[in-house]
Amino acid sequence: MQEILYINTLTEFKLLHIKKFNAIFYEQGGSMVDEKTVLTEVNRQMELIRRGVAEIIPEEELAQKLFRSIKEKRPLRAKLGLDPTAPDIHLGHTVVLNKLRQFQDLGHEVHLIIGDFTGRIGDPSGKSETRKQLSEEEVMANAATYQEQIFKILDREKTFIHFNSSWLMQLKLADVLNLAGKYTVARMLERDDFSKRYREGLPIGIHEFMYPLMQAYDSVELRADVELGGTDQKFNLLVGRNLLREYGQEPQVALTMPILEGTDGVQKMSKSLGNYIGVNEEAYEMFGKTMSIPDELIARYFELLTRVPMNDIQGLQEDMNSGKLNPRDAKIRLAKEIIKIYHNEEEAEKAEEKFRLVFSQRDIPEDIPVITSSEREVWLPKFLHDNSMVNSTSDGRRMIKQGAVKVNGEKYQEENLLLQDTMVLQVGRRKFCRLRLS
Amino acid sequence: MQEILYINTLTEFKLLHIKKFNAIFYEQGGSMVDEKTVLTEVNRQMELIRRGVAEIIPEEELAQKLFRSIKEKRPLRAKLGLDPTAPDIHLGHTVVLNKLRQFQDLGHEVHLIIGDFTGRIGDPSGKSETRKQLSEEEVMANAATYQEQIFKILDREKTFIHFNSSWLMQLKLADVLNLAGKYTVARMLERDDFSKRYREGLPIGIHEFMYPLMQAYDSVELRADVELGGTDQKFNLLVGRNLLREYGQEPQVALTMPILEGTDGVQKMSKSLGNYIGVNEEAYEMFGKTMSIPDELIARYFELLTRVPMNDIQGLQEDMNSGKLNPRDAKIRLAKEIIKIYHNEEEAEKAEEKFRLVFSQRDIPEDIPVITSSEREVWLPKFLHDNSMVNSTSDGRRMIKQGAVKVNGEKYQEENLLLQDTMVLQVGRRKFCRLRLS
Repeated sequence: MQEILYINTLTEFKLLHIKKFNAIFYEQGGSMVDEKTVLTEVNRQMELIRRGVAEIIPEEELAQKLFRSIKEKRPLRAKLGLDPTAPDIHLGHTVVLNKLRQFQDLGHEVHLIIGDFTGRIGDPSGKSETRKQLSEEEVMANAATYQEQIFKILDREKTFIHFNSSWLMQLKLADVLNLAGKYTVARMLERDDFSKRYREGLPIGIHEFMYPLMQAYDSVELRADVELGGTDQKFNLLVGRNLLREYGQEPQVALTMPILEGTDGVQKMSKSLGNYIGVNEEAYEMFGKTMSIPDELIARYFELLTRVPMNDIQGLQEDMNSGKLNPRDAKIRLAKEIIKIYHNEEEAEKAEEKFRLVFSQRDIPEDIPVITSSEREVWLPKFLHDNSMVNSTSDGRRMIKQGAVKVNGEKYQEENLLLQDTMVLQVGRRKFCRLRLS
Repeated sequence: MQEILYINTLTEFKLLHIKKFNAIFYEQGGSMVDEKTVLTEVNRQMELIRRGVAEIIPEEELAQKLFRSIKEKRPLRAKLGLDPTAPDIHLGHTVVLNKLRQFQDLGHEVHLIIGDFTGRIGDPSGKSETRKQLSEEEVMANAATYQEQIFKILDREKTFIHFNSSWLMQLKLADVLNLAGKYTVARMLERDDFSKRYREGLPIGIHEFMYPLMQAYDSVELRADVELGGTDQKFNLLVGRNLLREYGQEPQVALTMPILEGTDGVQKMSKSLGNYIGVNEEAYEMFGKTMSIPDELIARYFELLTRVPMNDIQGLQEDMNSGKLNPRDAKIRLAKEIIKIYHNEEEAEKAEEKFRLVFSQRDIPEDIPVITSSEREVWLPKFLHDNSMVNSTSDGRRMIKQGAVKVNGEKYQEENLLLQDTMVLQVGRRKFCRLRLS
C-alpha cells in the first residue's frame, strides 16, 4: 500500500484547510455552523476517496471541489475513458470502477467516455494492433457488452455514457491546430513510453502525440471535475488537467489507482496473461481463482476489490501476521466478498461449500500449481508427461490403469480426457495440478 | 556559386542515363531517332534549369520527369508556396520566381499556392508574430498585391493560383491523424530549427509539427512534379516528396535556390534589414541600390536576377578579375538589366543618365554610406550631427550658412529639409551619405 497523507480528524483537516475555506466561505456569505457541517462531510468523503488510491493530484483541490459541491449541493463530475476494443472486464479493471462507484455513493456523477473515435478511424499508420478499425456496429456491440458488465459495479442512475466520436468527428484542421498548440513537443516527450521509444530510436508517429490531447479534449467537452485512471494513465490525466486550464475552465483533479497484480501475484492482471478473474465468470470459478492468489495479496485485494471496511482488513492482516488466522480462511472470505458483488450471497455460500467438498474433504491442498492448456481434449498419458506429472507416456498409461490418477478427487481410468477449467488432476498421493483453459 | 554536376554534352548525358531511358522508351514503343531528339531536349532543359540552383533532389528524377514530359507533350507542374502575410516582393524573392519563369519558358506549368489557411487561423498558441490572424479580405487583398508584382516575372498564361484553405479547411480530425501518421517525431525533430530549439529547451508547439505536413499535403492535392524554394525550405520540400510517396503518388523533386544576400553583401535580403531592392521601386531607386552592392556580388546578382547568358557573366567576371572592366561599369549593366525586367529599356537608359549626371559629373563617389531614417522632415543641423557629418549642431548651422552643405549635388542653405529616398547629402568635400527612408 502507498504512503498517503491521512487526515483522520476534523481538527487536523481544519488546521490544514480552514484558512483557505474560511476565505471562500465568507465570500459566499456562509456561517460558522454551516461550515462545520460541510467540513465534516468533506473530511468524511476525502477519507473514503483516499482508500486505495495511488495519487490525488492535487489533494487540496479535490477537497475544495468537494467543499463547493457539498455546500452548493452540486455533484462532482467524475470521468473515466474506456477503450471500446477490449470489452471483457476483469477485476483489474474494477479497481477504478469501484472508486467511481464510491463517488456515486457519495452523491456524485460518473461520466464514462467510450473512446469510439479512435476505434472508428483505427491507427492511420496501420502499425498498431490495438487500434484496428472498427465498424459502427462493432463499436456499439462492444459498448453494450461493456455496459452490461459495468453496471454490476456502477449505479445506473448516476452514470452518464458519452461517445467521444460525437465531438471528435466534428473537429476540423483549424480546431486540431488550436488543440495541438496548447502543448509542446518537449512536454509530450516526457511521457514515459514516448521518451523511452525516442531514446531507443523507435518510431513515434506524430499522430500519436494527438491521442493524449484527444483524451484531454474529452475532459474539456465534459467539464470534468476529476478524471480517474490507473497509474499508467497519470500523464494523460495531467494533460487533461492542463488542457482544461488552457481552455479557460477549472482544471480537473487527476486520481490514479494502482495497477492490480493478477492471481499469479507477479504480473499485472490481464486477459492475455491468463492471470485474471473476469466479472462475468461463474461464482465457483471466481472462488477457485481467488484461492490461488499468494497470501501477500490478500489485504490488497480486499482493499481494492471489496467494500470491507479498512479497519476490518487491517484486523485480518494482523491476525494473519500473528498466526491467529489461516490465510486460507482469509481467502475464503475474500472470495465470498467478491462473489457477493458479481453474483450474490447465496452463490457465495454455494461456491464455498463446493470448494470445501472438492478440496478440503478430499485432501487436496489449496496451493497447487496451475497448468494452462489451450486444448480441450487431450491424450492423458502424454499430457501428464508433458507437465512432469509422470516420467513417460508409458508410465502415465500404467498409472491410469492402476487407478493412481484422479480427476477432481475421483479415480479416472480412461486415456482421453475432456479438460475443464479449474479441474484438479492428481497422480499418486502428492502430485496435484489445477487446469486453466486459455 | 555551388558546385553542381554539369553534364555538358549529349554524349555525357546519354552515358549516364541511356540505359534507364532505353528501358522506359522501348516499353512505350519509341524509336532511336525520336529518342535522340527527346534526349537533346532533356539535356538542354536540364542545363538551363541547373543555372543558379543550390540543389536538385534528385537530379536524375527531374531528368526522367522531363523526358516523359517532352515525349508525351505533358507539361510538368512546378509548385511554389507563398505566405500571404508579407506581400511586398523584393529581388530576394525573385530568385525562385525567375526559376519558375524559366520552367514556363521551357513549356511547363507553374502552380502557386497562396498559404491562406494558416493566415486565416493565425497561430493558435498566439506566440508567433508572423502568424497573426487575417480576415478573408486581408488575405484576398494581399493575394492581389502579390499577383500584381509576380506577373512582372511570371507568364500569366502558364500560372495557376490556388488557395490552400480550399482543401485544408475541409480536413477533419480523422484526416489530420491520417496525415500526421505518415511522419515520425524523430524525423520532424531533424529539421534544423526544431532540433536547435529542442536542444536549447525552447518550446515547440505540437501544432508546429503540422505546418510542414500541411505544406506537403498541398503537394498531394496538386500532384506536384517539382517544388521550388530557398535552401531554408529544403526540409519542407523533402517532407512533401515523402508524403506524395506515402499517398501513393509519384514523389516530387525538390529544387532549392540560394538565399540572396542584400545590398550590404552580408545578410540575406530582407525588408526589415533595409538591404532590399523592391520589384515595385522606381527605376532610379533600383539603379542607385544596385550600384551600392559590393563588387563580389556582381556575378551572383547577374546569375540569379537576370537572364544574361552564363557565358556572358563568366566573361564579365574574368574581365573584372583582369582589370579590363571597371566593376562600376559591370554594375551599371546589372542595374540596367534589372530595370529592363521590372520597367523597360527606356527607363533603364534614363536611370543610367540620371545616375551619371548626379554622381559622375558632380564628383559624388558611388560607394557612400547609407543612412536610414524614419522621419520625413528633419532639422538639418541636428540630423547631420546625429549622423556624424558635423561636430555639433552649431557646426552644422555654420556649414549650412557657408554653403558647404549640398543636397543631390546642389548647395542647400535652409535649416529644415524634407527627406527623400536616395537623396545624397554632402558636407564639405569628402563627407557623403545617401538616404533611405524606412
